[in-house]
Amino acid sequence: MTVELISVGTELLLGNIVNSNANYLSIKCAELGLSMYYQTVVGDNQDRLFEAIKNALKRSDMLIITGGLGPTQDDITKEVVAKVFGRKLVMDQDSKEKISNYFLSKYTNQNIKATITENNWKQAMKIADSTVVDNNNGTAPGYIVEEDNKIIILLPGPPSEMIPMFNNEIFPYLKDKQDKVFLSKMVKLCGVGESKAETMIIDLIKKQDNPTIAPYSHGGELHFRITAAAESEDEAEALIEPLLIELKKRFDDNIYTTDENETLEEVVVKLLKEKNYSLTTAESCTGGLLSSRIINVCGVSNVFKEGFITYSNEAKMKYLAVKKTTIETYGAVSPETAKEMAAGAAKQTSSDTALAVTGLAGPGGGSKEKPVGLVYIACYVKGELFVKELRLKGNRQKVRDQSVVNALDLLRRILTNY
Amino acid sequence: MTVELISVGTELLLGNIVNSNANYLSIKCAELGLSMYYQTVVGDNQDRLFEAIKNALKRSDMLIITGGLGPTQDDITKEVVAKVFGRKLVMDQDSKEKISNYFLSKYTNQNIKATITENNWKQAMKIADSTVVDNNNGTAPGYIVEEDNKIIILLPGPPSEMIPMFNNEIFPYLKDKQDKVFLSKMVKLCGVGESKAETMIIDLIKKQDNPTIAPYSHGGELHFRITAAAESEDEAEALIEPLLIELKKRFDDNIYTTDENETLEEVVVKLLKEKNYSLTTAESCTGGLLSSRIINVCGVSNVFKEGFITYSNEAKMKYLAVKKTTIETYGAVSPETAKEMAAGAAKQTSSDTALAVTGLAGPGGGSKEKPVGLVYIACYVKGELFVKELRLKGNRQKVRDQSVVNALDLLRRILTNY
Repeated sequence: MTVELISVGTELLLGNIVNSNANYLSIKCAELGLSMYYQTVVGDNQDRLFEAIKNALKRSDMLIITGGLGPTQDDITKEVVAKVFGRKLVMDQDSKEKISNYFLSKYTNQNIKATITENNWKQAMKIADSTVVDNNNGTAPGYIVEEDNKIIILLPGPPSEMIPMFNNEIFPYLKDKQDKVFLSKMVKLCGVGESKAETMIIDLIKKQDNPTIAPYSHGGELHFRITAAAESEDEAEALIEPLLIELKKRFDDNIYTTDENETLEEVVVKLLKEKNYSLTTAESCTGGLLSSRIINVCGVSNVFKEGFITYSNEAKMKYLAVKKTTIETYGAVSPETAKEMAAGAAKQTSSDTALAVTGLAGPGGGSKEKPVGLVYIACYVKGELFVKELRLKGNRQKVRDQSVVNALDLLRRILTNY
Repeated sequence: MTVELISVGTELLLGNIVNSNANYLSIKCAELGLSMYYQTVVGDNQDRLFEAIKNALKRSDMLIITGGLGPTQDDITKEVVAKVFGRKLVMDQDSKEKISNYFLSKYTNQNIKATITENNWKQAMKIADSTVVDNNNGTAPGYIVEEDNKIIILLPGPPSEMIPMFNNEIFPYLKDKQDKVFLSKMVKLCGVGESKAETMIIDLIKKQDNPTIAPYSHGGELHFRITAAAESEDEAEALIEPLLIELKKRFDDNIYTTDENETLEEVVVKLLKEKNYSLTTAESCTGGLLSSRIINVCGVSNVFKEGFITYSNEAKMKYLAVKKTTIETYGAVSPETAKEMAAGAAKQTSSDTALAVTGLAGPGGGSKEKPVGLVYIACYVKGELFVKELRLKGNRQKVRDQSVVNALDLLRRILTNY
């Protein structure tokens, strides 16, 4: 089955917002095994949207249209789809009631008089003979319209409404439509560059058919999605299994998880919890980025209690007991200073483990000997010290982001083998 | 002049990458005063790209096509555009030389033998009678093809190559094509929600014509771009001026800058430098996010030397001298604790100013009295303490991001009036 996306909204054409819906739906459609050949963005204009839909229906079995379902005059998607299929818009009592309840619940708490402006009832009108899809996060319902073996799915534009609606209602609906079962697994790597990783499995990528392999870059990490189509889930699992084994063989301990929903920091925190180890951080150039990522893990408080941002040399000496002679002899950006930072942070907080980062994030401050992008990561684990030198490329933000991924990855590797 | 975008790449249709190029070019085209009615994404397929270009040329004066200019067989954009206009591909000696030099400079330093694979010369072929646009950040040049009052601009897909090429070569080329001068100014706000801000200037938005006003949400901040078209830069400036004055009147001190390139943290650091004040941070729920944003400012080291991540109550007491009775009486998430954190951080580091954040980022840990999203920000300036209560919405990441913006903004307001 072929699908194509139409994103409606002048704000997309002006660049006021990024079309994150298209990216999200592309990933989901690929996961469902749907073939997508086109995506279109069109403004809030009846004639142009009409043309875009007509065009798309000629070449695809199904359209997913996002945006233009709101209460204002600019919201025209429902009206145009009705016109394309020559149908009427009719009042949907159920939608009317839900909109009414939504406003009541929203405003009663705040003692604001619930005034539902007339234009909101526009959202209770449905395309005749369409299926209404409930919106639990806003007032605009979604719709499924079927005609002559063609399907048009209308979804609200705000991602906070579109994503749950798609996941809860549309994904299962589309899965049912597929005569095959599509199953996908994620392999998440770090510590190996994107082009190197692709070279390492270029033979697998070239001969891919079923399952397929799709790479996704993700902030210094690399994720591969493996998708198989089969008659049953078991059969799909069996198709994926050998490829998964092959990827594990080739990437070995560069793989930190095969669980789609698990992040690198979650893996690190899980490993720490397993060993009942505490962690602290000492950051110079990353300036809190590393600790903020660790603290993004829910329930991290048993593991991580405190961290240090020691941007100046004085702070490194004062809080982490880095020796003055170490900084004078080797410099603040050196394996020696990084190690003393990690050891000092662990000692000061009586932590079992510590991560320290010191480096040159740029743009200024580099020299021939110590160029911008030179970063040292030190890791302390139960009295032992490990240090890693990085020579990173990119702007200040990129150098700092990659430093964080590398620091988390270093601790992960050490804990895994500990 | 009407323009439309065609983004070429199967990786976009699979969702492997986000189409950030389309967003960037939308903003730039709006800035240039070009009208954009459509954007299309199409895969690496000759027939479909041919159809997409043919279609687009029927309705627009100019196409900007990104992607598909690389050395592999999948890269077909140049070939298809040549076919659309019935032109040949010819070897461009200048491009050939540049590609050769690019590889030599890249590999000599690393003592790797410079082997330029045969497929790289594909990138030296140009569409006959087209203008070659140099790529200083990669091997694939861009092209400008003009025919019958239609223009097709071909740009490489990687944003790190596309953006500088567009800015340095294409933007001035397009500016020259316009018979009018387009000038734009940015008004950056924080401390006022997007919908409230729009309501405050709905009359201006509704009657906008020349200059236009376009809102952009930007991680808890709101930016308005004002663009005017005129015969001269002076005239455009004169058109923008009254609107700028009106916006300043309405948004007053919610505006932190009208300089497009200035960030909120840069404004804060600038204010600190002006007063020769130092800053420290004490973070609980934001866990380093606030300090990492401050440290992203180049040359911040005179102002910011150290910060504390005090996630546990013990750490708040140990490093910031928060009183045990304060935490026991009011809780860790309270104005009292926030104030003691800020005062303690300033005292401990002998800083002139300090920012402290304590809150419930969720998803767990909330109660009816203290719900998830409740955050207190305290600011210490030269012995005085200020505190602000926030009731934020959204997931853990969003609560933390908004806390950071609010903390920086609080300090900005205090320093501005100090």
